[in-house]
Amino acid sequence: MEKKYSVAVVGCTGLVGKTMLDVLYERKFPINELILYSMRGGKCDTPFGEVEALSLTQTNIYRHPCDFALFAVESDVSIRFAQIFSTMGAVVIDNSSAWRMDNNVPLVIPEVNPSSAFMHGGIIANPNCTTAQILTAVCPIHRAFGIKRMIVSTYQSVSGAGKAALDDLKSGGTQALGIRIADNMIPKIDKYVDGGYTAEELKIVNETHKILSRDIKVNATCVRVPVSHCHGATVHLELNQPATLNKVGECLIDAPSVKLLDAPTPLDIVGCDGVLVGRLRRDGESENGFCMWVVADNLRKGAAANAVQIMELLI
Amino acid sequence: MEKKYSVAVVGCTGLVGKTMLDVLYERKFPINELILYSMRGGKCDTPFGEVEALSLTQTNIYRHPCDFALFAVESDVSIRFAQIFSTMGAVVIDNSSAWRMDNNVPLVIPEVNPSSAFMHGGIIANPNCTTAQILTAVCPIHRAFGIKRMIVSTYQSVSGAGKAALDDLKSGGTQALGIRIADNMIPKIDKYVDGGYTAEELKIVNETHKILSRDIKVNATCVRVPVSHCHGATVHLELNQPATLNKVGECLIDAPSVKLLDAPTPLDIVGCDGVLVGRLRRDGESENGFCMWVVADNLRKGAAANAVQIMELLI
Repeated sequence: MEKKYSVAVVGCTGLVGKTMLDVLYERKFPINELILYSMRGGKCDTPFGEVEALSLTQTNIYRHPCDFALFAVESDVSIRFAQIFSTMGAVVIDNSSAWRMDNNVPLVIPEVNPSSAFMHGGIIANPNCTTAQILTAVCPIHRAFGIKRMIVSTYQSVSGAGKAALDDLKSGGTQALGIRIADNMIPKIDKYVDGGYTAEELKIVNETHKILSRDIKVNATCVRVPVSHCHGATVHLELNQPATLNKVGECLIDAPSVKLLDAPTPLDIVGCDGVLVGRLRRDGESENGFCMWVVADNLRKGAAANAVQIMELLI
Repeated sequence: MEKKYSVAVVGCTGLVGKTMLDVLYERKFPINELILYSMRGGKCDTPFGEVEALSLTQTNIYRHPCDFALFAVESDVSIRFAQIFSTMGAVVIDNSSAWRMDNNVPLVIPEVNPSSAFMHGGIIANPNCTTAQILTAVCPIHRAFGIKRMIVSTYQSVSGAGKAALDDLKSGGTQALGIRIADNMIPKIDKYVDGGYTAEELKIVNETHKILSRDIKVNATCVRVPVSHCHGATVHLELNQPATLNKVGECLIDAPSVKLLDAPTPLDIVGCDGVLVGRLRRDGESENGFCMWVVADNLRKGAAANAVQIMELLI
């Protein structure tokens, strides 16, 4: 008989938490007990039926041991509670940025560095949404030819900023982001950290170094666009070795979870787990230069699907 | 007494034609006679009052000589009619791509290459909207340090594709662009021309070479985003010489028509003639690398305002 697991979803009412429940259901993860946590508790509609969510307290965590805890909460909540779950024997897969750069926590994209997942000490980090989709696409190119430099510009959807931001997109409000996003673009995501770069931009740099290679020179500009779901990104690569357009295309065609198309849009991938790549072409003016467009559902491959894929690896 | 001019606007009912009338009015261009042309003729509301538009025929052009003809029509219409106006003694300022790469036609951004405007043989070309805003911003940096390489990703608004596309943005339709643009992004603008690049992308390359310098290596990816007005662009520069962030910032602060801000958005510039630059920072991983965000109203600096500025130069 197939082994089944008790799975907790922490932050089950947020956009990512809800999507985690959808993905667990769709991918038929073998669950024998589903435990939901939200800040305030209360009934929660899920694809598995209505479930009573527990409030996130140490006592509840002790009373309800689980095999896996999928975290879809802010960093500060993750810092307070993740280790309590792992002490109780659960493997925590955390979607916040709290643990990503911790040397003792693997940062995992199953298509890219699956073996890292097994070196965990109770917590595994899910990468930033944009990092996940870009590295899923470019990893096979890196393995074949080596990426020397990567220049990224993102086109990030509003769902990446949460439900209140999606409300602002509909209403024209400014509540969640401070600036109107409807019919507008905001070329600054998260706070400035260093050298004029935002936290969101440096996540792409640092997470690429941790997951793929410290030798890749990465530059990113992150822009919020008035699209509800799916992030796009233009990616300009300089490779270490000469490569033909055909060979680079073959890397993408063979890449797991990736589809190479002509000019894919957010509406081509919304609600799906994969990564679409398009507009692949040479930059004849750069040495071994190539450019492409990468689009994925930020709540799926950028968050929930990647987390459930990590659980699938481990069982 | 100030000299006044007779000015024709050809294509007065389109988005660019209407904006040309607004800009002529706002900038108080000295007009003694306004002649409007539209494909079908008919009454036209303008800031100068209601004007009866003529239908665009050779006979009408002969009957109504003018000093300047501002063209806001498709390339094929421009090819048919621009030389008729210039033969009649008018200076044509054309917003289409028909004449831009013609060796006998200057391609002019008044802040960048004003002297070229005086070398016309009856027709002057207005650059592509994105080229106009990017080169207005980076020209002073090029003059001071030399730009070696420029990698551009555009975030282009729907008004750049005309009124029917704006209707699609509101209605969720697919009539004008073939693909839904509402809540979506289209990473392909215009047709493929060469090497997997679109006409829109090669315009940025070729027009930068003609206006600024053939020595600049340019790579562009053009993406349509669901914003009604104003184009954004991320610009990654490699300079020929070392430069401090302060010195590059000073170039932008001193640049005519440019304002250097923190993180400007389309709503900060819509309906205005200037160019906003933000997110200026070093790319420490590139030799003499800098990046920035450039945003302008594509119907203004990207089209109508640039055309009227050319007329202002000539008088």
